[in-house]
Amino acid sequence: MVTSWEMRQSCYFPCTLCLTNMSRIADCNAVLKALQPIFQEQGMTETVHNWEDHGYLVTYIKKNGSFANLRIHPHGLVLVDLQSYNDDMKGREEVDQLLNKVEERMKELFHGNIKRVKRLPAILRGGVIDRYWPTADGRLVEYDIDEVVYDEDSPFQNIKILHSKQFGNILILSGDVNLAESDLAYTQAIMGSGKEDYTGKEVLILGGGDGGSNIDQMVIDGCKKHMRKTCGDVLDNLKGECYQVLIEDCIPVLKRYAKEGRMFDYVINDLTAVPISTSPEEDSTWEFLRLILDLSMKVLKQDGKYFTQGNCINLTDALTLYEEQLSRLYCPVEFSKETVCVPSYMELWVFYTIWKKQTGI
Amino acid sequence: MVTSWEMRQSCYFPCTLCLTNMSRIADCNAVLKALQPIFQEQGMTETVHNWEDHGYLVTYIKKNGSFANLRIHPHGLVLVDLQSYNDDMKGREEVDQLLNKVEERMKELFHGNIKRVKRLPAILRGGVIDRYWPTADGRLVEYDIDEVVYDEDSPFQNIKILHSKQFGNILILSGDVNLAESDLAYTQAIMGSGKEDYTGKEVLILGGGDGGSNIDQMVIDGCKKHMRKTCGDVLDNLKGECYQVLIEDCIPVLKRYAKEGRMFDYVINDLTAVPISTSPEEDSTWEFLRLILDLSMKVLKQDGKYFTQGNCINLTDALTLYEEQLSRLYCPVEFSKETVCVPSYMELWVFYTIWKKQTGI
Repeated sequence: MVTSWEMRQSCYFPCTLCLTNMSRIADCNAVLKALQPIFQEQGMTETVHNWEDHGYLVTYIKKNGSFANLRIHPHGLVLVDLQSYNDDMKGREEVDQLLNKVEERMKELFHGNIKRVKRLPAILRGGVIDRYWPTADGRLVEYDIDEVVYDEDSPFQNIKILHSKQFGNILILSGDVNLAESDLAYTQAIMGSGKEDYTGKEVLILGGGDGGSNIDQMVIDGCKKHMRKTCGDVLDNLKGECYQVLIEDCIPVLKRYAKEGRMFDYVINDLTAVPISTSPEEDSTWEFLRLILDLSMKVLKQDGKYFTQGNCINLTDALTLYEEQLSRLYCPVEFSKETVCVPSYMELWVFYTIWKKQTGI
Repeated sequence: MVTSWEMRQSCYFPCTLCLTNMSRIADCNAVLKALQPIFQEQGMTETVHNWEDHGYLVTYIKKNGSFANLRIHPHGLVLVDLQSYNDDMKGREEVDQLLNKVEERMKELFHGNIKRVKRLPAILRGGVIDRYWPTADGRLVEYDIDEVVYDEDSPFQNIKILHSKQFGNILILSGDVNLAESDLAYTQAIMGSGKEDYTGKEVLILGGGDGGSNIDQMVIDGCKKHMRKTCGDVLDNLKGECYQVLIEDCIPVLKRYAKEGRMFDYVINDLTAVPISTSPEEDSTWEFLRLILDLSMKVLKQDGKYFTQGNCINLTDALTLYEEQLSRLYCPVEFSKETVCVPSYMELWVFYTIWKKQTGI
């Protein structure tokens, strides 16, 4: 059994230098010549590719498996990318020293006339811990993950619970950050931001990824054990004095309630974010979403409120499409929305309040 | 004048494949052979480096200046990194298609036995807009920057105001995210989180990077124009009915107030975050910080409060050192701290309330 890849990881260090006007020095050759000795001093062997009109790619290879790419673009962009295996502090210091030398040499060559120098933190790949969980709007963000608490495949999805130093345990379903222990703001927002008095009220919660009622039993099992700051002891017993958790498909339940005429003061839909797809006609998720909305309205009292999450504020097209769906329900509704900062999301999130339009007498 | 680099950028696409047990197929050669045709179909020319004990690095070069690195580690980590210039949607689709093929071929080869496949969003470098502003604890985060609003060097620092789609304008001083228009939470926290009644009180604010009183006139000029959601019209006139903005070194001002016996109900220190350095004896920043604290305590009423930011919650060493400084002031003080989610920071931030210890009679 070879599992050693799990103990090691690849470290990629990106460094960018933007020059104000490279044509002044006539060609990329000067950069190549100036930087060559720095890599050669490291005992690296060189392979040069010259595109002529697209500049140079120089690959420097070290005996220990590390390598560097030096990409010189003729319009004044110089990229130095280092990749090594088995990250350790010594390796990082070496990388810093090497990049310091590159920067120094370039400043000498261009008499300080460098528009921008930027080094990005190392990107770590292939280790036990994956720290990169892109936002809903597709941005690269690195989390301070220091432990894999739970990692299982259910028949429906991959379920991860990862520990973040600052956010506590984070539930990640098929790569999407769902909720962290730090995210009380999410729960507050989807419950109406503290403006509601729930005393004696009938509340129907659909979903509840935070260790609430999800159709995937394994999510519940994982959350019950590892997301207790979020779900408390609610999931230990699926029935309490004033609540009951049903682990079922919510559609038949909603249909049954509608048929029985059971009505709620609040319906809280925490099933899924608004689909990112912008073609509602083609995507059955939108139909599912409208079905849920229609059924929810059927079991919502005339003066009741429906709370749900939308999506990240940057996905304006998806949010607009969602709002269009609201005009296509069986009964007329009105809505308001609120933008909330959910700590572990690293992006602002939109929440909706929907209610039945009151018809004048 | 060559300025075309400003209109183009380099796009780096990182893709990771982790295999459960690569030794089963005896060597990395099979991976190399399986993936070769995919790159060759793209008209890419191949350069192979074989480390023997450290696996392969294969560089594939395309005529248009793009290239790919295929790094095969013998313990089962395969990295495919693509780098191209002149990002466009067509380029991205091509990259996706190529990576799909790689993934497919690898799954065939290992009969689906691949532990993890991960593609990260492209890293864009060298363009007009720099979207990467690492957190205080050194994590790589990408912002949704879509415009450079202001970018100037003052005698003290580089001052940038960048527009984020979700956070509004963000003030970035020498690479550190200072405050965005979304960050009311910061201002509220450093003012005591809404628990104070400022009516008729004397308040001394030191610093105020959010377009408040910074010694760097250029920061004020930039903020006055571009951070109005944060600073309102306060900076248009440095003197108002109930406030005065002094653009001076705060040390002599504090000394003068102390000498005059001028006392304040509140001192709000927004000068700088707690230094990240862990060697307070060597770093003059700590001395500066203690000097400010001592002088502030001298002008603070016996029942007054001192508010200040700490740093990100993950920098526990720096925060502990800061708290140790508090026991070294001329008068005994007590403190409490609060952790706040400042939207544009993408990390939790610690704020302190400090007060003079009430001595019993």
